[in-house]
Amino acid sequence: MKRVMLTIVAMLLAGVATLSAQQNLWQKDANVSPEIHADNSVTIRLYAPNAESVTLVGDFVDNASMQRNAEGVWEYTSEPLASELYCYWFNVDGIDHVNDPMNSYVMRDVGSQMNYFIIPGERGDLYAAQDVPHGTMAKVWAEVSDGRERRMTIYTPAGYEEGKGRYPVLYLLHGMGGDEDAWSATGRVAEIMDNLIASGKAEAMIVVMTNGCTKHVAAPGYSHEGMWRPYMSGSMDGSFEAMFPSIVEWVDDHYRTKAKKAHRAIAGLSMGGFHSMQISKEYPAMFGYVGLFSAAIFRGKEGIETYANTEAKLERQFAEGVELYWIGIGKEDFLYDENVRYRELLDSEGYPYTYRESEGGHIWRNWRIYLGEYAQLLFK
Amino acid sequence: MKRVMLTIVAMLLAGVATLSAQQNLWQKDANVSPEIHADNSVTIRLYAPNAESVTLVGDFVDNASMQRNAEGVWEYTSEPLASELYCYWFNVDGIDHVNDPMNSYVMRDVGSQMNYFIIPGERGDLYAAQDVPHGTMAKVWAEVSDGRERRMTIYTPAGYEEGKGRYPVLYLLHGMGGDEDAWSATGRVAEIMDNLIASGKAEAMIVVMTNGCTKHVAAPGYSHEGMWRPYMSGSMDGSFEAMFPSIVEWVDDHYRTKAKKAHRAIAGLSMGGFHSMQISKEYPAMFGYVGLFSAAIFRGKEGIETYANTEAKLERQFAEGVELYWIGIGKEDFLYDENVRYRELLDSEGYPYTYRESEGGHIWRNWRIYLGEYAQLLFK
Repeated sequence: MKRVMLTIVAMLLAGVATLSAQQNLWQKDANVSPEIHADNSVTIRLYAPNAESVTLVGDFVDNASMQRNAEGVWEYTSEPLASELYCYWFNVDGIDHVNDPMNSYVMRDVGSQMNYFIIPGERGDLYAAQDVPHGTMAKVWAEVSDGRERRMTIYTPAGYEEGKGRYPVLYLLHGMGGDEDAWSATGRVAEIMDNLIASGKAEAMIVVMTNGCTKHVAAPGYSHEGMWRPYMSGSMDGSFEAMFPSIVEWVDDHYRTKAKKAHRAIAGLSMGGFHSMQISKEYPAMFGYVGLFSAAIFRGKEGIETYANTEAKLERQFAEGVELYWIGIGKEDFLYDENVRYRELLDSEGYPYTYRESEGGHIWRNWRIYLGEYAQLLFK
Repeated sequence: MKRVMLTIVAMLLAGVATLSAQQNLWQKDANVSPEIHADNSVTIRLYAPNAESVTLVGDFVDNASMQRNAEGVWEYTSEPLASELYCYWFNVDGIDHVNDPMNSYVMRDVGSQMNYFIIPGERGDLYAAQDVPHGTMAKVWAEVSDGRERRMTIYTPAGYEEGKGRYPVLYLLHGMGGDEDAWSATGRVAEIMDNLIASGKAEAMIVVMTNGCTKHVAAPGYSHEGMWRPYMSGSMDGSFEAMFPSIVEWVDDHYRTKAKKAHRAIAGLSMGGFHSMQISKEYPAMFGYVGLFSAAIFRGKEGIETYANTEAKLERQFAEGVELYWIGIGKEDFLYDENVRYRELLDSEGYPYTYRESEGGHIWRNWRIYLGEYAQLLFK
C-alpha cells in the first residue's frame, strides 16, 4: 500500500499524471459520486465489482436497490430533489454502513459518519458557503462552575475581530449523543449564520455551542478521557443547568457581548430543547429568547430539584417577560405528543409562544430549518 | 430507515434500552473495532456476513487478509504495536476503500477518510488529548494581498485569551492536495502543542496554518467555489509566496504576536516544505526558524522569478542570519535524493542546518514526528 501511494504521489508531483478534480488519490476508478444533474436529480455510484447486493440508505431514499453496470459500478439515480442538504450511506452485502469512498464530505451524527451533498436553491444555498463575509469558528476551553475545563464551539460574526462593538449571543444546544461539535458540523451554523447575516435577514450575533453531556468535558477525541465510541449519552439530571450561569459568565468575560437578557437567546434540539426550556425557566432574568426544537420536554430524571415545580417556574418566567418563546416540531417526530401536551400547558396559562410545525421527524434536516427561521427572529 | 432510527432514538430517550459506550446507534452488531489489547496489539473487526473477501489496509499492515468467524465478523489481530497513531481502512469484495463503521474516528487526507486509533505511550500520548491546559483552535478568514478573503486555522496557546502577553508565531504549511484543515486534523497540532507546552518542552506559541493551494480560498466545503472532490492541487507558481507577507501582516495585526524575525518560524511538509524554503529565502528578514519536512525542494514551476537565483538568495538569507534551518526526511521518501542534492548545495556553501533522518516515507507519521521535534527547538 505504502509503495503504491508513494508511486502515485511521485507521479503527481512530477506532473506525469494529470488528474481531474473528481479523481481520488486512492481510488482506482474515477466514478463520480454523487453526481448532481441539471434537473437536481442525483446519481450515487459505488464501484463494488464483486458485491452481491448494494442498497442506498439516506434521507432522500428508503433503502433503495442499486443496479450494477458492466464495469462493476452500482448506480442509483433519484427523482429531481428539492433544494436541501441530503445524507446517505450504503449497505453492501450485509455491512450496514459503508461510506461513499468517492465523496469526501461527511458529517458525524453520534457515532456514524454520513456522506452528504447539497442541492442548490433557496435552502441548499443557505447551508453552503457563499461569497460573503465569513465569521470565525473557534474551539475554546472554558473553566466552568464544576471546576473542570470544558470545550465549546464559538462563532463570532464577520467583523467581530476588527471591530469594537458588542454583540448579542445565541446559546445553541445539541441533543443526546451530541457534543460541542454537533451544531458546527452537522448543523451548518457557520454557513447559516454567515448567509443570514450577510443578507440582512439576521442580526450579527455570537453563537455559543456548548457540550450538554456533562459526563465528558469534550467531544470524543478531544478529551483526556480517551477515545470512546460516541453513544447516546445525555445529562438530564440537573448538572448542565447548574453550570450554565458560569458558562454565560465566561462568555461575557471573554467576548464583547451585550450582557443582558434582551440580547441573549437560547435554543436547542431534542435534549437541548429540554435544556433550553429548563435553563430559561430556572434563570428567568437570563434569556429573552427561547427556542425549543423537537424538544424532549418531559424527560428529566425523577427527583431532581431543577425539574420540580415547573408550573410555578414558568409562571415566574413569563411574568418577568419573554421576547420570544419558539416551539418547532415535525409532524412525524416521536416527541410530537409530548410537545402537544406542553403547548396545552402553556395555552392553559395563556403564555404566548410561536409554533412551527414542519414535515418529517426527529432529524437534523428539521433542526437546520428551525435554526434558519429562529435566528431571523432574534434581537430585533 | 427513518422509522428504524426514530424507534431507536425513542427507546433510548425513554430509557428502555441500555447501551454500552461501544455500541452504535445504527450498527446492528456491537463488535468493538478497533480493540486495543493490554499488550498493545490491536484487533480490527468488520461485520460483513455476506462478503467473500475482506482485507485490511493501513500504515501498520500491508493489505492483510482478515478471517471470517461464525457470526460473520471478519477479524485481524496485529502484533504488539509501538506507541503511535495508526490509520487503516478495508478492502471489501473489490471496494478499495471501506471505512470502519464501528470506529467514529476519521481523518481526511486529500480526498480519503481514514480511520485511526492511538496506541498509548510516549508518542501516542503526545498525539492524544491530555488533562492539561488547552489552546484554542480557530477557523478564521483573512483578506490577503490578492484581494481575496482566505481561510486559515490558528492555534492560540492556553492562557492567550486571558493574558496580555505577546507570543512567537509558527507558520505551518501543508502539502499538495492539503488545505488549512490538514495540520489541525491529521497533523494533531492542538494535541501536540498543548502537550509540549504543558510539559515545558516547547515555548507557548501561536501556530498559523494557511492554505497553500491558492486556486481556492478555503478547504473543500468552506469555499463559495463549491464542493469539489479534493485532489492533488498545489501552488508552485510563485503565487503563494507572493501573498505570504500579507498573511504575516494580517496575523501581526490581529494577534498579540512578537512581530520580529527572532520570534517567527516557518515549516511545512512536502510542497509546504518547498514553500517554507522559498518564502524564507525570498523574505530573509522574516523568519528566524525554518523547517523543511520531506520538502519537494526542486519542484517549482519553470520560469517563475521567485524560483530563480536560488543560490544568491540563499547566500543573502544565511548572511542575514538563521537561528535554525531544520531538514527532516524519511529514508524511503521519494524525495530523499532531492533532499540529498539540496543538502549538498547547503554543504558546499557551508550553510549550517540540522538534519533529521527518520524511517519510512512520505507519510503523515513522519510529519507529526518532525513537528513534535521541531517545535521543541523554537524560540529558545
